[in-house]
Amino acid sequence: MVKEKFHTSKTTVLDENPLNSDGLYPDPEKLLSKDTINLNILKRLVGQSVISVDQFDKELVLEVCKFAALLESTEIASSHPLDGKIVITAFFEASTRTRLSFESAVLRLDGKIVSIANGNSTGVAKGESLSDIGEMFNAYGDVVVMRHTETESVDEVMSNLRIPLINAGNGSGEHPTQALADWFAILKWKPQLKGEVTKEAKIHLGILGTPGSMRAVNSFLRMSLLFRQGIRKISIVSEMADPLGEELEELLSASGVEYFITNDINEVVSDLDVIYMNSIAFLGDSYRSLDSRFKLHKDSKLKDDAVVLHPLARLDELDPNLDTTTHNLYFTQAHGAVFIRQALFISVLNRFAKLPKEHIPFSE
Amino acid sequence: MVKEKFHTSKTTVLDENPLNSDGLYPDPEKLLSKDTINLNILKRLVGQSVISVDQFDKELVLEVCKFAALLESTEIASSHPLDGKIVITAFFEASTRTRLSFESAVLRLDGKIVSIANGNSTGVAKGESLSDIGEMFNAYGDVVVMRHTETESVDEVMSNLRIPLINAGNGSGEHPTQALADWFAILKWKPQLKGEVTKEAKIHLGILGTPGSMRAVNSFLRMSLLFRQGIRKISIVSEMADPLGEELEELLSASGVEYFITNDINEVVSDLDVIYMNSIAFLGDSYRSLDSRFKLHKDSKLKDDAVVLHPLARLDELDPNLDTTTHNLYFTQAHGAVFIRQALFISVLNRFAKLPKEHIPFSE
Amino acid sequence: MVKEKFHTSKTTVLDENPLNSDGLYPDPEKLLSKDTINLNILKRLVGQSVISVDQFDKELVLEVCKFAALLESTEIASSHPLDGKIVITAFFEASTRTRLSFESAVLRLDGKIVSIANGNSTGVAKGESLSDIGEMFNAYGDVVVMRHTETESVDEVMSNLRIPLINAGNGSGEHPTQALADWFAILKWKPQLKGEVTKEAKIHLGILGTPGSMRAVNSFLRMSLLFRQGIRKISIVSEMADPLGEELEELLSASGVEYFITNDINEVVSDLDVIYMNSIAFLGDSYRSLDSRFKLHKDSKLKDDAVVLHPLARLDELDPNLDTTTHNLYFTQAHGAVFIRQALFISVLNRFAKLPKEHIPFSE
Repeated sequence: MVKEKFHTSKTTVLDENPLNSDGLYPDPEKLLSKDTINLNILKRLVGQSVISVDQFDKELVLEVCKFAALLESTEIASSHPLDGKIVITAFFEASTRTRLSFESAVLRLDGKIVSIANGNSTGVAKGESLSDIGEMFNAYGDVVVMRHTETESVDEVMSNLRIPLINAGNGSGEHPTQALADWFAILKWKPQLKGEVTKEAKIHLGILGTPGSMRAVNSFLRMSLLFRQGIRKISIVSEMADPLGEELEELLSASGVEYFITNDINEVVSDLDVIYMNSIAFLGDSYRSLDSRFKLHKDSKLKDDAVVLHPLARLDELDPNLDTTTHNLYFTQAHGAVFIRQALFISVLNRFAKLPKEHIPFSE
Repeated sequence: MVKEKFHTSKTTVLDENPLNSDGLYPDPEKLLSKDTINLNILKRLVGQSVISVDQFDKELVLEVCKFAALLESTEIASSHPLDGKIVITAFFEASTRTRLSFESAVLRLDGKIVSIANGNSTGVAKGESLSDIGEMFNAYGDVVVMRHTETESVDEVMSNLRIPLINAGNGSGEHPTQALADWFAILKWKPQLKGEVTKEAKIHLGILGTPGSMRAVNSFLRMSLLFRQGIRKISIVSEMADPLGEELEELLSASGVEYFITNDINEVVSDLDVIYMNSIAFLGDSYRSLDSRFKLHKDSKLKDDAVVLHPLARLDELDPNLDTTTHNLYFTQAHGAVFIRQALFISVLNRFAKLPKEHIPFSE
Repeated sequence: MVKEKFHTSKTTVLDENPLNSDGLYPDPEKLLSKDTINLNILKRLVGQSVISVDQFDKELVLEVCKFAALLESTEIASSHPLDGKIVITAFFEASTRTRLSFESAVLRLDGKIVSIANGNSTGVAKGESLSDIGEMFNAYGDVVVMRHTETESVDEVMSNLRIPLINAGNGSGEHPTQALADWFAILKWKPQLKGEVTKEAKIHLGILGTPGSMRAVNSFLRMSLLFRQGIRKISIVSEMADPLGEELEELLSASGVEYFITNDINEVVSDLDVIYMNSIAFLGDSYRSLDSRFKLHKDSKLKDDAVVLHPLARLDELDPNLDTTTHNLYFTQAHGAVFIRQALFISVLNRFAKLPKEHIPFSE
């Protein structure tokens, strides 16, 4: 390490600072606790593509998160569980951050990568159909991670694909592995949300953004509904008049969770337990300034133990002066994403048998 | 697998469907049959660059194809034959498809890759000479795979190169590994073309494109002449008045193979056994529509057992409605290219000794 | 090998041609001679970032160069000393040559790479702060190699970085690994510069370029001052009136080394022992012709045993007709850079224990 850093909370004094010396919520083992990981549930992912949050139920999300916690807290990687497997990272919409997260996950498990880092500027962009590109993927890898600017890209590439696809964001569609990383972070912060919680322990969830048109927000909201037993209320802060759209509104209504829509975060911030942000000003390749109704900083009236999520990169909607406080769950969220992706690769490629038996609390 | 797919031929009913469940001509072992692979012939490639089809004779093409068939049908890759070797993939003309084919080939054999995915937009483009780039390659890898927009690029980079180069397409020059992949597919389809064939079994070969100015077509035609004993006639379909140019015309005349030039595929299609297509409308960075004289689709008057080759990507010259018919040899061709490239790397780098002895029918 | 090449000096006849059959100064063992490598000195690099030449003293430079010589002359790489480690190569200013040198170094030691080959055109460029990018690097790798157009980029990314960073060039700042490669080549050429030298053996060092504003020249000059006991005189050839700037001028004055500034190489060339060149006409993305006052070629009045360094790529300031003479130390310099970088990675990541004990002349 270049230097040791000891972040200390500046806005809150907790009995026990939950952050480790790297400023992260460190304790994946707390999430795992004495549970075993149910292999039969994880094996539902074998050979499957991961396209939408709708493929998941709560128990599958939990087993994936527990498996990720295990991968984060033990040295399982050294058993080379992805040995001999090739992952294709196909980014037709460039995203260095997401691509590196996936590639790092694979390489640490000794898998290999062939990479299309910038699909829009390379040969495949010249008029070739996505279904032909899907057929190409069959020949060159064992699983594809794809990001694309178009929502329908996933359906198109799947029409000829015979290997599993992990959707890393399709237009205004979904971003399911991000939602898993989001909830992995939340469950580290409050492991009791795994099961039944008392009325007092239920959380008020704030979402800054437009679930109806932003894929990460959409996927996060859908996954949150799987944990509705632990949620007291969902507040959506958006400048759009109808931030949900018909389908999500029905889903939310049917869930029985109380929800509230506003265009000013200050109206609800002091009651929120979890605040999910996004670079909501970031539209395609341009972005613009947000006014204070959508920004968070150290002077925001946050509850002492509220936490903030953000699927980085951020612009100025989230002030760096929050980084060194215990409100910062977003760094934990980014770090954990690597292990969520590892859990998915091992499951989809059915490489459980490669893991060191003695360290793994698997049950069937 | 995401889903099982059982392609059934829609236009032909064969006694025995030659396609496997992936829609590919699957049986590389038939090509290998009970032959041994002559190691002395393969070893002619040790330390050599692969620049042009003219370096090959028929027996070398056959041993490379038989070796590729072996690699495709056995688990030889797990012996890590390229362990410790670095392949530089230098694409000064971007081609995601070709680059991924080479990289996948190397990684499955446990070789390593340093990649110039888009040479035109990076540092090397800023006025540096190709001979200096060749000297750079000496320091950073064990073999170079290069694609370049300029025909003379290969000579220039070779002037300082002391490691082998595999030519992955140089301007309007050659694309020899594509021609090997093309003939690998043809030999899987009709293994008897390896040796003497009866007059009735000889094939009529149709080539859509301009051999004189398109590298893949050029290399394919040159390699086809090595198999002239199995070829009854070659028909070239091109909109150009002189699609061959002087050198190829002499070569073709000297070969003794009957040939015919037309500008309408419909004139010959019903007699063709093998149809070699290309994105002939694709010129540099622009492309334009082709009229029906150069297109193939399910209603084309194909012979029942005719096969179509295409070194993808395709535009609309080749209708996807042919994909699920037994005419589709182009997917087999694309899949096989990976193993052709593996055979070349193992040969050029002389890694035969790394292969598991017991499984390899090598003779010397 | 494609072909054997035997370069023979055209301008000088030495008793013993120091170049090997590849045209390189080949003998890293001469540099190492019977010395042991002092592990305690190398271990000063463990966990450290490598930002500036100012972090080095002469004894550390020497141990790094001796370690690089050992790596160049033995088969240590096969012990996989970087197994399980991920290096992030983050090039926010594209440089294929430098990126490949680092990546090749890592891969030959069995480390893994995640690569941002062209940072300016990818997601991270869209308004994200470098300190956030630093936090991202923490999650995805064990060490970062960064090149950036801005001098202050290193400080910014370091503000959140908890893993070591290797500075591969920051704006007009520094390029310390290049300076190590430069001196590695000089020490191969004249190993006695390691220690005390007689007055007659001291060298006259010529630098073409502007140390005050060109990072590689700046770093080279700073490192040269560590070897001032072997330097008789430093001549700086630059078209700028004040090529040094205040800080370097003070440093140079304080060193006690005689120095001389001119704008015409022909004024000093016949007395120079080492000539350090650079593409001085290359400014940002544009370049322009240099007149003869800044060019070297075979008819330049070089001393018989003078050597030329150049941290390629070159334009026309350095004529290729010098390549096949013994003046050419620049190819040796480029090849050696790979081993310098390997020595740094093994040291920074503290992987000495992975090296095969029996072959390593380490002392503590």
